[in-house]
Amino acid sequence: QQKKQQNSEYKQLQEKLKTDTFSFGLLIQGLADIQPERSAGHNGFKASKGRFKISGIFDGRFGYNLQATMLKTPSVLDANVYYKPTANLSIKGGVFKSPFTHEYNTGAGSILFVNRSAVVNQLGTKRQVGVQIDGFTPNGLLRYTAGVFNGSNYGNNKNDDDYLQYMGRLEGYLNNNGKNRAKVGVSVAVEQKDVPSAYGNIPSTFEGDQKLMTSYFSITQGKILLDGEFIYSWLESPAAQNYNPYGYYATVGYYVAPKGRLLLRWDSFTGDNLTGDSESLIAGFNYYPSSFAKVKLNYILPTDQSVEYSTFLVAMQISF
Amino acid sequence: QQKKQQNSEYKQLQEKLKTDTFSFGLLIQGLADIQPERSAGHNGFKASKGRFKISGIFDGRFGYNLQATMLKTPSVLDANVYYKPTANLSIKGGVFKSPFTHEYNTGAGSILFVNRSAVVNQLGTKRQVGVQIDGFTPNGLLRYTAGVFNGSNYGNNKNDDDYLQYMGRLEGYLNNNGKNRAKVGVSVAVEQKDVPSAYGNIPSTFEGDQKLMTSYFSITQGKILLDGEFIYSWLESPAAQNYNPYGYYATVGYYVAPKGRLLLRWDSFTGDNLTGDSESLIAGFNYYPSSFAKVKLNYILPTDQSVEYSTFLVAMQISF
Amino acid sequence: QQKKQQNSEYKQLQEKLKTDTFSFGLLIQGLADIQPERSAGHNGFKASKGRFKISGIFDGRFGYNLQATMLKTPSVLDANVYYKPTANLSIKGGVFKSPFTHEYNTGAGSILFVNRSAVVNQLGTKRQVGVQIDGFTPNGLLRYTAGVFNGSNYGNNKNDDDYLQYMGRLEGYLNNNGKNRAKVGVSVAVEQKDVPSAYGNIPSTFEGDQKLMTSYFSITQGKILLDGEFIYSWLESPAAQNYNPYGYYATVGYYVAPKGRLLLRWDSFTGDNLTGDSESLIAGFNYYPSSFAKVKLNYILPTDQSVEYSTFLVAMQISF
Repeated sequence: QQKKQQNSEYKQLQEKLKTDTFSFGLLIQGLADIQPERSAGHNGFKASKGRFKISGIFDGRFGYNLQATMLKTPSVLDANVYYKPTANLSIKGGVFKSPFTHEYNTGAGSILFVNRSAVVNQLGTKRQVGVQIDGFTPNGLLRYTAGVFNGSNYGNNKNDDDYLQYMGRLEGYLNNNGKNRAKVGVSVAVEQKDVPSAYGNIPSTFEGDQKLMTSYFSITQGKILLDGEFIYSWLESPAAQNYNPYGYYATVGYYVAPKGRLLLRWDSFTGDNLTGDSESLIAGFNYYPSSFAKVKLNYILPTDQSVEYSTFLVAMQISF
Repeated sequence: QQKKQQNSEYKQLQEKLKTDTFSFGLLIQGLADIQPERSAGHNGFKASKGRFKISGIFDGRFGYNLQATMLKTPSVLDANVYYKPTANLSIKGGVFKSPFTHEYNTGAGSILFVNRSAVVNQLGTKRQVGVQIDGFTPNGLLRYTAGVFNGSNYGNNKNDDDYLQYMGRLEGYLNNNGKNRAKVGVSVAVEQKDVPSAYGNIPSTFEGDQKLMTSYFSITQGKILLDGEFIYSWLESPAAQNYNPYGYYATVGYYVAPKGRLLLRWDSFTGDNLTGDSESLIAGFNYYPSSFAKVKLNYILPTDQSVEYSTFLVAMQISF
Repeated sequence: QQKKQQNSEYKQLQEKLKTDTFSFGLLIQGLADIQPERSAGHNGFKASKGRFKISGIFDGRFGYNLQATMLKTPSVLDANVYYKPTANLSIKGGVFKSPFTHEYNTGAGSILFVNRSAVVNQLGTKRQVGVQIDGFTPNGLLRYTAGVFNGSNYGNNKNDDDYLQYMGRLEGYLNNNGKNRAKVGVSVAVEQKDVPSAYGNIPSTFEGDQKLMTSYFSITQGKILLDGEFIYSWLESPAAQNYNPYGYYATVGYYVAPKGRLLLRWDSFTGDNLTGDSESLIAGFNYYPSSFAKVKLNYILPTDQSVEYSTFLVAMQISF
């Protein structure tokens, strides 16, 4: 009975808010953050997500995305238009997630833990202003993406030095039959940084030549999930000093109940003197009481610090 | 004929924008502000409200609210999710109006005068990040609410000291048959303030222990409205200095015509050396030409200053 | 076949998002900006538009507009309400485009080139907070508009000196039969500036008496477009120093194909020692692949500088 009502609500919402030319969605999340011995900040609450997303495509060829958060300024997350000359190819311009890391390109409502991994936060390229070409091979097994970006995230919405960031990604889909899926990928990003940027990856005073590479995989097999990513960097300052910050995460997940999944992650980042190192073990439990709601419990144990610095996070999320 | 058209427009809007799972609303208000002898600012115009609100509930159990103003940054007003285990009980987390004052918890489109009372602006707790439990007794006559908050309004969206603010409210509904309604309530809020906050109540340099209490009533009987609130505070600094700012307002309203209501308010606030005192008499006339439009005329006579400091406000509002 | 699908998509979107009481629209634009020898900034990309617009009218009498951009803070563009006592007359209050220049009052999605002309950017009054009365003669041939504004654009959403800006506009429609249209207009704006404003026209340190006048025309005849505007100013400082910045633009357009229009503009501005002069020739090509999409190519040749300072702009826009 209740199942029927849920289905009818789902259908009603779909018909009202999700059409080809106009689709509206929301993501709202409240968070409680408790750390017995704080390394930074204070215990308390956060409104951690509050955003809407509008997207659509006309004639199957001219598409758009506008996503904004009510919690930051300016509120823009995505503002881009794209053109699909064929079903397998799109050319996109505006501000959007640059095609580099696996975890950053996973939507904020779909990431496995409350926060993304240290290495993705530190080294991953984020949302930027630029253009990209994105395509699939006819059999749908290989995806290739290449883009040119301003290289300083959305930030001030313009290039702040005379260099652009170039990026390329290859993704392969090894298995796609129903519930069993497997994906592997590799991306590179190269840039000359003339201006130290408060935004973007390695938010530091580093200037110079910067090369980034990531490789990742994600496998879902029945109730099991395996997911990991390794990012390495080559940073060379004009004084020929070299730094190689790098890091990785590896995640195991298992559905212990139809609506509940246990997760375990090893999260490691090495700053190579440019920024601090970090190592932690993260246990998570995600509960999906409805197709619109999600509860996430995270316990973060920093293996390089004493246990009092453990963090407990409780997030409650609604999205559609 | 016109009545019929209004009804059909109203129904059309309801069907399009107001459903259980997704409801969209707006509030826009333009304001003219004239004071012959200015105590602050300059005579002129203001866009005083410009906001949208999205809300809904899935399966009757998982609800959400997202409200944002286009006039401030960050734009968030409300961003919260809630869970209703039963029809009479909800648990809410995120940013929302803390359950303290009567007038602040009255929606911006529904408050009686253009501005809220001095005591509510000075002592009332505002929107905060936190969690609350909110319930009704089975007969619907008593509402009880309790919450824990960061204690610094939305502000920087995190706790800025090591203390939380605890709040409790009891509301009784003495009469609820159709047009005659009566409500009384009492709330308390306690907090240790370690950091003087530019946000929140008594935006001053005060630090220390803070207890707040409010009691209020609101009675609608036919064409008559009676409405009042009294807020008292106990503030104790670490040097054991005590302050007791307090204040109150009392309002009388009368529908002089089906679409026009006269209002009179006595508004008093005593800052007890922490901030200035104020006393004023406010006359208002609210005109409701349509169920979507409202015009408010306010004349504010400061009884502790000369008559040249009177303020005239004209507000024109559309909301749905 | 494709034509039919486009029409059905157009109708579907109309029914869903465009009704009398509630109409929702979007404008998104990505931009590439290349200048071989930069006079300012760096070559790169921009998300140049990312906004939504909500508007409607109840009972044919009470209307509202709310437009916000996700790219600036605060996000408000328009937040106003209006009252139409008769079909030919409206009284509006809030923040909206002040009724002065022709080009600024042309919507961001409909302007001919990527950027507006120098003189409109420098001397034109922009969005402001205020009230206006706007009417048509019964035959619809003459439009008259008069308003009072705070005089500092939206800016801080309040008057920043003790003076208001008064504005009047007359517009005549000489021809309105189908595709052939002709419009002429003249506007004046007078203000005492007591506070030098970073916002508004002539964003400079100028203080004193300011009079502005513009006259303009716009003619569409078959495939041809002629469009021009001339703005002159009388600025007098308290020390009786006089400045007369002025400028103009003249545009010719021609549909070289059903979906493609060539444009040529002469753009001139004289700062009269208050700000710099500029002169440029702008060639544009607008391509309309769909009723929702637009591509704009602009080549800007500054005739007072060497050719290396030419700018190339490519904009891709989606709007509905």
